[in-house]
Amino acid sequence: MATTLRSIRGVTPLLDRILVQRVKAENKTASGLYIPEKNVEKLNEAKVLAVGPGAHDANGKLLPVSVKTGDRVLIPPFGGSTVKVGDEDFILFRDHEILAKITEE
Amino acid sequence: MATTLRSIRGVTPLLDRILVQRVKAENKTASGLYIPEKNVEKLNEAKVLAVGPGAHDANGKLLPVSVKTGDRVLIPPFGGSTVKVGDEDFILFRDHEILAKITEE
Amino acid sequence: MATTLRSIRGVTPLLDRILVQRVKAENKTASGLYIPEKNVEKLNEAKVLAVGPGAHDANGKLLPVSVKTGDRVLIPPFGGSTVKVGDEDFILFRDHEILAKITEE
Amino acid sequence: MATTLRSIRGVTPLLDRILVQRVKAENKTASGLYIPEKNVEKLNEAKVLAVGPGAHDANGKLLPVSVKTGDRVLIPPFGGSTVKVGDEDFILFRDHEILAKITEE
Amino acid sequence: MATTLRSIRGVTPLLDRILVQRVKAENKTASGLYIPEKNVEKLNEAKVLAVGPGAHDANGKLLPVSVKTGDRVLIPPFGGSTVKVGDEDFILFRDHEILAKITEE
Amino acid sequence: MATTLRSIRGVTPLLDRILVQRVKAENKTASGLYIPEKNVEKLNEAKVLAVGPGAHDANGKLLPVSVKTGDRVLIPPFGGSTVKVGDEDFILFRDHEILAKITEE
Amino acid sequence: MATTLRSIRGVTPLLDRILVQRVKAENKTASGLYIPEKNVEKLNEAKVLAVGPGAHDANGKLLPVSVKTGDRVLIPPFGGSTVKVGDEDFILFRDHEILAKITEE
Repeated sequence: MATTLRSIRGVTPLLDRILVQRVKAENKTASGLYIPEKNVEKLNEAKVLAVGPGAHDANGKLLPVSVKTGDRVLIPPFGGSTVKVGDEDFILFRDHEILAKITEE
Repeated sequence: MATTLRSIRGVTPLLDRILVQRVKAENKTASGLYIPEKNVEKLNEAKVLAVGPGAHDANGKLLPVSVKTGDRVLIPPFGGSTVKVGDEDFILFRDHEILAKITEE
Repeated sequence: MATTLRSIRGVTPLLDRILVQRVKAENKTASGLYIPEKNVEKLNEAKVLAVGPGAHDANGKLLPVSVKTGDRVLIPPFGGSTVKVGDEDFILFRDHEILAKITEE
Repeated sequence: MATTLRSIRGVTPLLDRILVQRVKAENKTASGLYIPEKNVEKLNEAKVLAVGPGAHDANGKLLPVSVKTGDRVLIPPFGGSTVKVGDEDFILFRDHEILAKITEE
Repeated sequence: MATTLRSIRGVTPLLDRILVQRVKAENKTASGLYIPEKNVEKLNEAKVLAVGPGAHDANGKLLPVSVKTGDRVLIPPFGGSTVKVGDEDFILFRDHEILAKITEE
Repeated sequence: MATTLRSIRGVTPLLDRILVQRVKAENKTASGLYIPEKNVEKLNEAKVLAVGPGAHDANGKLLPVSVKTGDRVLIPPFGGSTVKVGDEDFILFRDHEILAKITEE
Repeated sequence: MATTLRSIRGVTPLLDRILVQRVKAENKTASGLYIPEKNVEKLNEAKVLAVGPGAHDANGKLLPVSVKTGDRVLIPPFGGSTVKVGDEDFILFRDHEILAKITEE
């Protein structure tokens, strides 16, 4: 999805949406050789850049989202809405689509 | 959807619908050359022109919409109902279809 | 849907249904030439002729409809149940299918 | 649906079902010529012969049906369960499938 | 569905299921000629042999079924789970699938 | 579904699941001749070996299951999750899939 | 799903997700012969490595999950989201997809 945005910082997700950027895999082999862009493996890890206020349950009560800005998360291989800012791709997922948090030291 | 409307101002969205107009991408290249209409990239940014009163949750409580007139928003590439006023196209989305607000300075 | 009705006035929509008649586009060009019936553009504007009492939410509470008799409205290009009275076509929509009100002066 | 019923009067619809009989269109042209059975137009008008007690909403509250025995109604062109008594056809609809009441004098 | 049951009496439907046996149409013509089994018309009438305790609504409240053992009912032409006891076929329907009661004298 | 289980006794169904074993039909004809395994009729009768604690309704209230260990039940011809212990097959159904109890003396 | 994770310990499932690792079947025959990796039977047993906080019911009440870290469980043959850490595969299921607990001594 193309936009005229100059920076992703101006994007505030609505409802229970979570704005993430996928972590890029190493584009060099262990011995330092460059891997062509299209062969670089797509990781299912991402960083949370911004979160929405949450969605309402059937009784209208606001349920906050389960991750916060800065979290490292596991995301599904498909789904979400892509947002392009210049050459960078970002993705908007719904909170319930985020699989897990990563708290590796 | 053709209408006899002379101006979009007379349209009040119902329930949780949001009336938006898509932001038009530049139709000139950086060096000033005109890009033919059909090659101009479709942006997923839009301006909110009017909002409905909101929809009821399962208990009949009215849930207000999450954007207001004048907001800049990210909209999905597809969906919504198009409304034609003269040669201009506008789109009616449901509140939960609007992806994010843009608060870029 | 054929009926033996002599007038649409005797029809009272049930639940949250809205009885409308589509506004007819001009069947003459700007210069006064007649446009054959089948080429006349189908508008998505309509007039509300009658409304139902509303439908019950999950808790059995009656939710009134959001338009009233006489309103000018935007209707979706498809859907609804057509009702024929003589040569005239009318359409029954559900309240949540009506897109917007038109309050043009 | 074939039955051994001798009269439709013995049938009591269950839940929110409505038992109707479709109004038969004229089988003679204006000038009195008989129209063969299979060319007689199928009307979407019907008479209510019996109604069920209603269905429960999500909270178990009984919601009565919105039509009563003797009402003239508009029914959808398809759907419902047909009940044959001898050569006569009757139809069982759910209350929410009945489109409108006809109160023509 | 084959079983080792010797009699249907030992079967107690669970939840809101209703155990019925389809009424058999006459297998003789008016003039007393036998109609081969496969040409005997399938009726949509049945007798209720046993009923379950009912199902819970969304709030966990038990909703009793709307028919009782011994009732004559109209059943849909398809659906239900067949239960074979010897050469006899019985059918288990959900309460909401039973169309109507027959109270013909 | 293959497992390393030595006995089915160690399996405790979760939520509203019911662990059953299908009753085997006679593999001998009335006159004592053996019927090849693949021609032995599949019965829809089963014995309940273990039951889960039940599932929560929409309000979080725990609804107990409607059968107990030791019950003889009617099961649908298809569905459920098969569990293999050695050469024996067992099946896990949801409580609402069990059709009826058999209380034959 | 590839990740840069060095250990699965840093993964905390969200909502009602359960992180498991499938139990590996014996890769040697009874007589000690090695079975090629691709012929080793896939078991439906797994060990629970971590559990999420639970999901909200329709009223926003948090329902805890029904298994805990360390439990041996039966999992369905398909479904879930796979997580790769180095050469090891792990799976994230929803709580309601886990079939049973195994409490074999």
